[in-house]
Amino acid sequence: MTDADVIATLDDLIRIPPFHAYLGVEVVRAAPGLAVLRIPPKEEFVGNPLVPAVHGGIIAALVDLAGGAALFIETQIPTPTIDMRVDYLRPAIAGRPLIAEARVASSGKHVAFVDVDVKDDQDRLVARGRCVYSVKDRASPPPGRAYPIG
Amino acid sequence: MTDADVIATLDDLIRIPPFHAYLGVEVVRAAPGLAVLRIPPKEEFVGNPLVPAVHGGIIAALVDLAGGAALFIETQIPTPTIDMRVDYLRPAIAGRPLIAEARVASSGKHVAFVDVDVKDDQDRLVARGRCVYSVKDRASPPPGRAYPIG
Amino acid sequence: MTDADVIATLDDLIRIPPFHAYLGVEVVRAAPGLAVLRIPPKEEFVGNPLVPAVHGGIIAALVDLAGGAALFIETQIPTPTIDMRVDYLRPAIAGRPLIAEARVASSGKHVAFVDVDVKDDQDRLVARGRCVYSVKDRASPPPGRAYPIG
Amino acid sequence: MTDADVIATLDDLIRIPPFHAYLGVEVVRAAPGLAVLRIPPKEEFVGNPLVPAVHGGIIAALVDLAGGAALFIETQIPTPTIDMRVDYLRPAIAGRPLIAEARVASSGKHVAFVDVDVKDDQDRLVARGRCVYSVKDRASPPPGRAYPIG
Repeated sequence: MTDADVIATLDDLIRIPPFHAYLGVEVVRAAPGLAVLRIPPKEEFVGNPLVPAVHGGIIAALVDLAGGAALFIETQIPTPTIDMRVDYLRPAIAGRPLIAEARVASSGKHVAFVDVDVKDDQDRLVARGRCVYSVKDRASPPPGRAYPIG
Repeated sequence: MTDADVIATLDDLIRIPPFHAYLGVEVVRAAPGLAVLRIPPKEEFVGNPLVPAVHGGIIAALVDLAGGAALFIETQIPTPTIDMRVDYLRPAIAGRPLIAEARVASSGKHVAFVDVDVKDDQDRLVARGRCVYSVKDRASPPPGRAYPIG
Repeated sequence: MTDADVIATLDDLIRIPPFHAYLGVEVVRAAPGLAVLRIPPKEEFVGNPLVPAVHGGIIAALVDLAGGAALFIETQIPTPTIDMRVDYLRPAIAGRPLIAEARVASSGKHVAFVDVDVKDDQDRLVARGRCVYSVKDRASPPPGRAYPIG
Repeated sequence: MTDADVIATLDDLIRIPPFHAYLGVEVVRAAPGLAVLRIPPKEEFVGNPLVPAVHGGIIAALVDLAGGAALFIETQIPTPTIDMRVDYLRPAIAGRPLIAEARVASSGKHVAFVDVDVKDDQDRLVARGRCVYSVKDRASPPPGRAYPIG
């Protein structure tokens, strides 16, 4: 597959789960061990009307999703999240898209570690995530094409 | 306020942000340093149609939300999330409500630590969270009633 | 084995690694899924002479060690640490022993989650840890008695 | 101060705590927001005689220490650790020095986030850490020179 094909395929898959459709997530870049996803600004993502910042839960969901996507390009199998950490470096100002760049740091026989940076469209780092996924079924990919991320 | 009043007030506040309305979150119990929240089963929370489990991002959002709610009962101020960890102990089977029980472990002058257990309606522990919040503005609560959680 | 035997066996094993000897760790209680360890007060554990508190690295090491011990009682195999989180709730005043109570929260086919509370001898919670271990070799225990913790 | 002065000063300070002397830590590089520390190979750092790898607690201590050092160059004040995460990407083979490179990701009025990579002398990434520190006293540095790290 060309890079464009990888992006298009991942973009198709990632839009399937209804929660991803709610987030409006789209694939910006994709390569082995790398996924860059984008969610658009939406008024309903604001956590606190008095502090117009994106809800931390939206950002956490984006981190998990991007990490799983980066891994899927390599593994082509579902990789359940074992644990996740999100650090909120600064408020994500509402009204701006958020871009999550996920890179696989290490992928072994049993688990994989993925780092995720979340920036706004002015390249300000708003959050940083670390996710650990189980890749236990790597040896036996499922028959047929399973939707794997989320 | 009576306990029932605390619950009703928190329940009113927590339903304000649109993302909380999407989650359908409601307050089950509330006391100083404790919040128990519930989200109903929704088909759109499923992450992967082939593995009918609740999306990890939904669970992460619930953890952050419950932690903030437990703290708000004590502080009555907005407390931005500094960081959060979520451990996914077992898949959250779709079609069941999820109950998050958040307890403030320690609340100092600057930061507060909150532990969150997420169980299904059969009391199976599906996830465990640890959240750290900034309580820096505790000394100067905002004028008027601010919506604080999220 | 009786409970006393379990404690004595674990205590023997845990003293083998030189770093554990440096820490002076001893086993206080032990049962399936539970380990309570203790390190004595030592002047050399102080991190900063001007703030006489125990070094955070000593506490982190104790967390990892206690979590591994709790798991070893169940698994009897080496369980490498995948990741660990430590929250420092309050300074651990130097000159007091520290007691780490580790409980296995969940132990599956591939990974296990362990929670660890670190208290001083006045029952003040000074730190709280969460560790994830690989239990991948559970099916095939090593021949002979392996020292497993650390 | 020249870069060499910064390194020499930090190196002097970092050797003060007895636990750091035990670790044998030395400063390799230092600049605002960056610290590179090194610990030598020592037989007593081995966790499990049957699996000759460096004890996870040693690595966790190094992560905390390096993160605090990177921050101290900027802040010149003690910055207590709020929480720390360590991911163990691969075993740290005993008999090799370990190098921790800590970079301040974000430093605000109240907290700072630091990322730490731990590699061996063959540039293999063995662990990755994320630490959050309280910088609350930044406005009021202590009188005189306090030893700050640890």
